[in-house]
Amino acid sequence: VTTSPPATNHSRERQALPDVQGAPDHRRIAIDRVGVRGITHPIVLSLTGGRTQSTVAQVSMSVSLAADRKGTHMSRFLEVLGAFAGDLGPDRMREMAAELRVRLAAQEAELELSFPYFVSKSAPVTGLSGLMDFPVRVRVTDSAQGSDFVLRVSASATSLCPCSKEIADFGAHNQRCTISAEVRFTGSLVIEDIIDHLEASASCAVYPVLKRPDEKYVTEEAFRNPKFVEDIVRDLAQRLTADERVTWYRISSENFESIHGHNAFAEIERHVR
Amino acid sequence: VTTSPPATNHSRERQALPDVQGAPDHRRIAIDRVGVRGITHPIVLSLTGGRTQSTVAQVSMSVSLAADRKGTHMSRFLEVLGAFAGDLGPDRMREMAAELRVRLAAQEAELELSFPYFVSKSAPVTGLSGLMDFPVRVRVTDSAQGSDFVLRVSASATSLCPCSKEIADFGAHNQRCTISAEVRFTGSLVIEDIIDHLEASASCAVYPVLKRPDEKYVTEEAFRNPKFVEDIVRDLAQRLTADERVTWYRISSENFESIHGHNAFAEIERHVR
Amino acid sequence: VTTSPPATNHSRERQALPDVQGAPDHRRIAIDRVGVRGITHPIVLSLTGGRTQSTVAQVSMSVSLAADRKGTHMSRFLEVLGAFAGDLGPDRMREMAAELRVRLAAQEAELELSFPYFVSKSAPVTGLSGLMDFPVRVRVTDSAQGSDFVLRVSASATSLCPCSKEIADFGAHNQRCTISAEVRFTGSLVIEDIIDHLEASASCAVYPVLKRPDEKYVTEEAFRNPKFVEDIVRDLAQRLTADERVTWYRISSENFESIHGHNAFAEIERHVR
Amino acid sequence: VTTSPPATNHSRERQALPDVQGAPDHRRIAIDRVGVRGITHPIVLSLTGGRTQSTVAQVSMSVSLAADRKGTHMSRFLEVLGAFAGDLGPDRMREMAAELRVRLAAQEAELELSFPYFVSKSAPVTGLSGLMDFPVRVRVTDSAQGSDFVLRVSASATSLCPCSKEIADFGAHNQRCTISAEVRFTGSLVIEDIIDHLEASASCAVYPVLKRPDEKYVTEEAFRNPKFVEDIVRDLAQRLTADERVTWYRISSENFESIHGHNAFAEIERHVR
Repeated sequence: VTTSPPATNHSRERQALPDVQGAPDHRRIAIDRVGVRGITHPIVLSLTGGRTQSTVAQVSMSVSLAADRKGTHMSRFLEVLGAFAGDLGPDRMREMAAELRVRLAAQEAELELSFPYFVSKSAPVTGLSGLMDFPVRVRVTDSAQGSDFVLRVSASATSLCPCSKEIADFGAHNQRCTISAEVRFTGSLVIEDIIDHLEASASCAVYPVLKRPDEKYVTEEAFRNPKFVEDIVRDLAQRLTADERVTWYRISSENFESIHGHNAFAEIERHVR
Repeated sequence: VTTSPPATNHSRERQALPDVQGAPDHRRIAIDRVGVRGITHPIVLSLTGGRTQSTVAQVSMSVSLAADRKGTHMSRFLEVLGAFAGDLGPDRMREMAAELRVRLAAQEAELELSFPYFVSKSAPVTGLSGLMDFPVRVRVTDSAQGSDFVLRVSASATSLCPCSKEIADFGAHNQRCTISAEVRFTGSLVIEDIIDHLEASASCAVYPVLKRPDEKYVTEEAFRNPKFVEDIVRDLAQRLTADERVTWYRISSENFESIHGHNAFAEIERHVR
Repeated sequence: VTTSPPATNHSRERQALPDVQGAPDHRRIAIDRVGVRGITHPIVLSLTGGRTQSTVAQVSMSVSLAADRKGTHMSRFLEVLGAFAGDLGPDRMREMAAELRVRLAAQEAELELSFPYFVSKSAPVTGLSGLMDFPVRVRVTDSAQGSDFVLRVSASATSLCPCSKEIADFGAHNQRCTISAEVRFTGSLVIEDIIDHLEASASCAVYPVLKRPDEKYVTEEAFRNPKFVEDIVRDLAQRLTADERVTWYRISSENFESIHGHNAFAEIERHVR
Repeated sequence: VTTSPPATNHSRERQALPDVQGAPDHRRIAIDRVGVRGITHPIVLSLTGGRTQSTVAQVSMSVSLAADRKGTHMSRFLEVLGAFAGDLGPDRMREMAAELRVRLAAQEAELELSFPYFVSKSAPVTGLSGLMDFPVRVRVTDSAQGSDFVLRVSASATSLCPCSKEIADFGAHNQRCTISAEVRFTGSLVIEDIIDHLEASASCAVYPVLKRPDEKYVTEEAFRNPKFVEDIVRDLAQRLTADERVTWYRISSENFESIHGHNAFAEIERHVR
């Protein structure tokens, strides 16, 4: 990889290069968010019980910019990312957002990490296991008022249409759906807790490895639990409302209808305590 | 295309099929939005002066659902779309959202149309013209309180880095950026008006057809107008604030940095009058 | 070469601008394809019977470049596109590729147009109609040996798993799938002919508008026609082999398994006559 | 509720579940590839010198299917993936493809792994380092004739237009480009070797962290090395042809033109020894 230094002489000394970003700005317009995104970076998640998980994140980092400053210093975002990526639990993510705010001398800093989270999942009858990926997004905002931590988890699952089951003489259309929950919470809520809520709200969970006895089971299980997209979000809303750690949620399901070329979707947002 | 009718006898009469969606629901949870999305549909835009433009939209349509109703009637969304798609100006889009609310017997209905909008654009020196596409998204919400119309327009443009220009002995890094403005407004604001604001905020506009004299012009024009991503959103904020028709905006620029593998971005949201 | 920067006086006349692309190249390496892509452009399709259809295409255009020429002239691609986009039937697409070859003075030219094609489709029982979109890609290559025309059409459809149906006491998992056929042919083969082949190879077609009697029909129809992804491509292969106009095909199905987070797929490529 | 369920009641023991996939097929059509894709899975790469790298792959696995067999056994693909994902060097990837062929009793098996590969990269003047991601795709095909290993690596880089530099009185348009090389080779060719070839063919490499002295350097370096998209692929072709380990390549560059809304691209494919 070419990291070799330059050949020619630099007519200006490093320290003499003007700091254009640091100049004052006369338009008097504060900027809500300025930063970098589209960064693909490996991260190591620190999980409960001392476990870790290596994954790859899409990263976005930004800060607010005061009305009188011309620009922010983009390279510092990358330096902070490099310093934190190897050890990221919830507390460290908050620290990372706080560090962005300090390094960029900003009123507010926002960090967004999107990554697949992997869970070993056993088939319901044979118990054969494999890894399933669950898309996760963490958004942490840090300001003088403290930090705001919002966790979003998505799961693929099966939905089976109650109307189709009721009106057809046999069978029922079913399909993959993506169920998502974005939550604010108190105490310790781990990603697996949300996955449990998501999967329990579907007609049936999906699995990486299924042998015939497993396939028989999931086929019948979905048929026993028909759910409209409306049922999925309502059942999920009930579960999250009953989970005393959750204070706010925004949930959705998108069903890739097997009888249409388009999708059905439903959304609910609630402050619960 | 197979549109042929069924072969077998249907044991139940059509009118006898149970209406599962219409059943009462006992969980007492209202749903914010339920509907369909992922629909690709041709539309004909009705423009000022009796002009029209044929394009293709990605469509999302939803309604709120009362706590005591089990489900909505998904097929009606498609029927409304079919009825309106051939003649869509701003007023008709509002009517379409209102019609969704009536047909689905809902408190609130939301319509979202995303489509490329095409403008003939002439090269700055030779005047040779070609079509440029500008991504547009219209979101209309209809409720008893009236309708809310939000228009989003994006434009590709050139940004040239002021710091790079200042510190380098020759040249300056520049790149394509995508500048977007989402606005609420009063009176008649057309898509072209927003495009003007977007392009005027960049270092230089981009063009479909450029001959050598044009390329010379845009190269030098960008070099004369260096702008950080911060400058682009501030200049755009100034222009939108000065446009008396605009009451609210959310603007952004994302710059596909030519010296990095990642992007720089900035965002501002303001209520202006 | 400008090594000494700024100043605003334009020292060179327009006609004096050097043609860098037209210079000789000394590396002696011919280029297979050089051109433009990522163009979004409205097109009007000329169909059989004098009908037309307005849609929006993603366009890619390229030519081969001789070993001794430094560069091609990118702006000419856009000029040819502008001249042809308003009237595009199969013959005109061939003419457009030929025109690219002439205008760019190349041995070979390639044109690729990807666009949604819309067909009015009636529900199987109620007959209620709506528009369905079918992704189409046309690739035309023009050379001294003549032109090569390859047509690709995709359709969403329903697949229902034979294993699941066989082993479960009730129900069967099913899902949306995308079936595609890329074909070379002689005579007149229209997009609708391929759509017929694609849909007839699935467990059931999908529809834009379905009322309850229709939903009952498609649910039962899919249950009566269980198909593995292997069955879909084999049935499609049989149909295309039997269609005397088809001389070559590459077909695939990708099934968005409702019991997994991943997809099943199958592919066959054959020269048939 | 399924009032009249399908077929007959299934009172079969688990071990008695019929093997539908294993049944004979009477259409006599062999399938080129059948398998699974859209799998997101963590992998650990085994690198030279005993190093390892954790990343996340998009995985596709398929086998050929004989004309007389009804279906393949999809769950076995996932089992093989689980067994190999934790230790994947080039040899293990070949073994994994061979294992797929054995486990699925197929004539041919194909494995495709797409993942970001991370390299620590130092800024050209200050030496400050950060991680850069390079998209990699490995495709391994295993048959009785042995295995075929094809490696594809992409890099973001800077391209600066020679024409723009030549005709403008100051400045030159430049932009990010994506340069890719897909290669077959003998001996040991590591990903870093290809990255070197890719970056050396651009006007300048891109970096994760750049301070002002670095930005001055890359701005001037790009200006000193203007390259058309044609130049990039020709220079890369020269380098790969000169690399005695490379036996075949397919290379491309796509430039996200800063003066247009569309991209320029070029491609070359060659058997070299």
